[in-house]
Amino acid sequence: MAKEITSRAENYSQWYNDIVLKADLAENSAVRGCMVIKPYGYAIWEKIQATMDRMFKETGHSNAYFPLFIPKSFFSKEASHVEGFAKECAIVTHYRLKNDENGKGIIVDEDAKLEEELIVRPTSETIIWSTYKNWIQSYRDLPLLINQWANVVRWEMRTRLFLRTAEFLWQEGHTAHATREEAIEETNKMVNVYADFAENYLAIPVIIGTKTENERFAGALETYTIEAMMQDGKALQSGTSHFLGQNFAKAFDVKFTNQKGQLDYVWATSWGSTTRLIGALVMTHSDDNGLVLPPKMAPIQVVIVPIYKKTEQLAAISDKANQIKKVLETKGITVKYDDRDTHKPGWKFAEYEMKGVPVRIAIGPRDMEENTLELARRDTLEKKSYPQEGIENVVTETLENIQKNMYAKALDFRNKNTHVVDDYEDFKKILDDNGGFILAHWDGTSETEIKIKEETKATIRCIPIDSKPEEGKCIYSGKPSKQRVIFARAY
Amino acid sequence: MAKEITSRAENYSQWYNDIVLKADLAENSAVRGCMVIKPYGYAIWEKIQATMDRMFKETGHSNAYFPLFIPKSFFSKEASHVEGFAKECAIVTHYRLKNDENGKGIIVDEDAKLEEELIVRPTSETIIWSTYKNWIQSYRDLPLLINQWANVVRWEMRTRLFLRTAEFLWQEGHTAHATREEAIEETNKMVNVYADFAENYLAIPVIIGTKTENERFAGALETYTIEAMMQDGKALQSGTSHFLGQNFAKAFDVKFTNQKGQLDYVWATSWGSTTRLIGALVMTHSDDNGLVLPPKMAPIQVVIVPIYKKTEQLAAISDKANQIKKVLETKGITVKYDDRDTHKPGWKFAEYEMKGVPVRIAIGPRDMEENTLELARRDTLEKKSYPQEGIENVVTETLENIQKNMYAKALDFRNKNTHVVDDYEDFKKILDDNGGFILAHWDGTSETEIKIKEETKATIRCIPIDSKPEEGKCIYSGKPSKQRVIFARAY
Repeated sequence: MAKEITSRAENYSQWYNDIVLKADLAENSAVRGCMVIKPYGYAIWEKIQATMDRMFKETGHSNAYFPLFIPKSFFSKEASHVEGFAKECAIVTHYRLKNDENGKGIIVDEDAKLEEELIVRPTSETIIWSTYKNWIQSYRDLPLLINQWANVVRWEMRTRLFLRTAEFLWQEGHTAHATREEAIEETNKMVNVYADFAENYLAIPVIIGTKTENERFAGALETYTIEAMMQDGKALQSGTSHFLGQNFAKAFDVKFTNQKGQLDYVWATSWGSTTRLIGALVMTHSDDNGLVLPPKMAPIQVVIVPIYKKTEQLAAISDKANQIKKVLETKGITVKYDDRDTHKPGWKFAEYEMKGVPVRIAIGPRDMEENTLELARRDTLEKKSYPQEGIENVVTETLENIQKNMYAKALDFRNKNTHVVDDYEDFKKILDDNGGFILAHWDGTSETEIKIKEETKATIRCIPIDSKPEEGKCIYSGKPSKQRVIFARAY
Repeated sequence: MAKEITSRAENYSQWYNDIVLKADLAENSAVRGCMVIKPYGYAIWEKIQATMDRMFKETGHSNAYFPLFIPKSFFSKEASHVEGFAKECAIVTHYRLKNDENGKGIIVDEDAKLEEELIVRPTSETIIWSTYKNWIQSYRDLPLLINQWANVVRWEMRTRLFLRTAEFLWQEGHTAHATREEAIEETNKMVNVYADFAENYLAIPVIIGTKTENERFAGALETYTIEAMMQDGKALQSGTSHFLGQNFAKAFDVKFTNQKGQLDYVWATSWGSTTRLIGALVMTHSDDNGLVLPPKMAPIQVVIVPIYKKTEQLAAISDKANQIKKVLETKGITVKYDDRDTHKPGWKFAEYEMKGVPVRIAIGPRDMEENTLELARRDTLEKKSYPQEGIENVVTETLENIQKNMYAKALDFRNKNTHVVDDYEDFKKILDDNGGFILAHWDGTSETEIKIKEETKATIRCIPIDSKPEEGKCIYSGKPSKQRVIFARAY
């Protein structure tokens, strides 16, 4: 197998596609804009799901499932939501096919036209809040903390595997609260859950911040985001948490009796993250040899490859390899022993390198004599010989090191590519020459933001929550500003 | 709370609906035929998913994800499949909405009409086999053992929560094999996985058999099914596994080079089970007091309810209850301690009875003096006092007993309601008076099968795989028959 991939330097975008395809993560399907998530890619999604699901449950949330379809009229109920969402979407208009009378196969049965068209959900606020209306009467019914794992569809014109597809998988949390403060606290809590997950599992450093009015979710009063930096310096929004105020409660007339016996509208949040996280994983860590996965998200954490010439040699190596596999598994490590005789060791090495398996162990006849083995790290590509005895401790430690090292490397990259800029010419030059995040002053108006975007393709990724107040002048208008914001070109 | 439910004797169908609604499992949504699966119902689905997913992985399968949409033309490629499936389904014809020029809200943008309509998947054979074409070249690529957890849509006119809804959740396995024998073995293996799951987790006894040609999956050469008996004597098909021969490989031109270097079409299977299993669970075990859940599928296995008059009493009871909770949890038991002061013990008892929690523990002031507690079983409604000391062993044993008892009770019910019948008048009378399964001879023709169905509404549920050959005469036509089959009215 010669699975060559384009280098990042040569063509970053092609490099990304090559990895997604050649590491067997996903591919385009016969349906425009929809991807097939292949078993290896889906196994990463299962890891993401399992971890996030545990975190959601630990913070008091339950899962539920709401309909795929949303009546068209629901979108019109929340004015700003319809503007932001209802346009590019898949619309179901009929519910039956029939045989063509002229023998031309099957055609849409025009007699089976829906009275009201159904929209394939691009997000579920409207259908969920129309349901919550019946679930919430009193403060005793609150808070309502629900999450849904589902597929959604947004009819994107230009699609890229994982990053932007017509259909994608995601989770969407939809919570209802008795007070404004509680809803804001929930919004905050969940963006922090996302940040915790991104940093401690995906090994991706993120900046938590709020979106500008322009970039806010349609229908939200405040949108919190986590923003990550990819290796080409572009930003990738990796999870958002929205404080929706009483907008959806008002649109769907969801009121409750508070503890004082008064009727009030319910306060809402929603928060989501998607299969896009797999794209973030690829673009943050991978190299010109293929995918690099953080151990905590790797479907296979350790692969063992036997090296032998004669069948007798294989038997002894297999005994040892299976012993090691068993010991590692008791430590909770996922191990694959690849003793296929249809492929050579070199082919296997390349394959697991491409697939980003964090640790590779090779055992050959010489190793068997000397009770050693060779351990290779995917992140640094370092190889080293170790005694077989006690290898489980070496592997455990190595996996922890890889996880930490990958995060540190990504953080270092982000730091090196984050620039504090006070001059608009510098701003444009840095964007063009280097990319990355630019910390600059902004006058707080959508007008300026839009002009900068038109002129440079950079958007305000967020107003970081931990940045300090600082007097300054807007990089574009020269008007006063009280805080730097993060500009970047983005996916 | 007076959550009264209709009794089974009064109105079985209403009893079922009452339980689904009042145990908070699911409800109808604003979208015709689509249900909302509520958190408690979804928690049962999560248990089903987790267990089956483990069983699929243990038998060598991986998960993947394929598009929600299927181009209309794909359905026409497999002739019998299109007949069986492509009619009643949701059809996407447009991909954009726009603001109405006359200010009437949003309307479908006629300029955004799809060149080819997309069908929301009713099942995924066609899209998956069109994908497999690119994945399979050689015998080395086989077998391909893939499962998908997904939502599907079939435009049913008459819907019932869980049993028949327009959208439902399911898993669908789609495997590809080098030989006919291997594919048949897989078909068999998976129907046995379903039977194992139904009997050992859902506590539902099932009969494994093959479907008649009439009742077979559209495009299959053989369909295996597991059939369960509900408390009204009707059958519920609870999982099917299909041997598809080379039909889909031929329709999508999926060939492989076998070990002899010859080109051949690939052999296929598919197998599926759905959220309908929750309906089966309800209808097999529940009683006139509400849901009864087998411990292995119960989101809450043990609930502890404190009984007290004064707040000081609660503190001591809570200490003890939390101790017990902790000990039970170390045994892997899911426990809820409900110390809410907003509801009385009697209300809580009724609530957890309605929700089918297998074991209820009540602790009151007298218990605290005597170091005892009251334990109630949901299946038998028996209550008994036990010492607090060592209660974890009593609970563990009780949960195991409940699981076994529920299966035994359901099996006993099925045995009592299974009749060997040789006369068509008896057949009709038993169906009307008693219902249940009827073992009768059948001449093997679709014609007879259809006539019996027209006259009695009974269908052949399956030809049991473990039934012995027996010479006889068809109950309807009098023609010779070599084996009894199972007739029943069905959901």
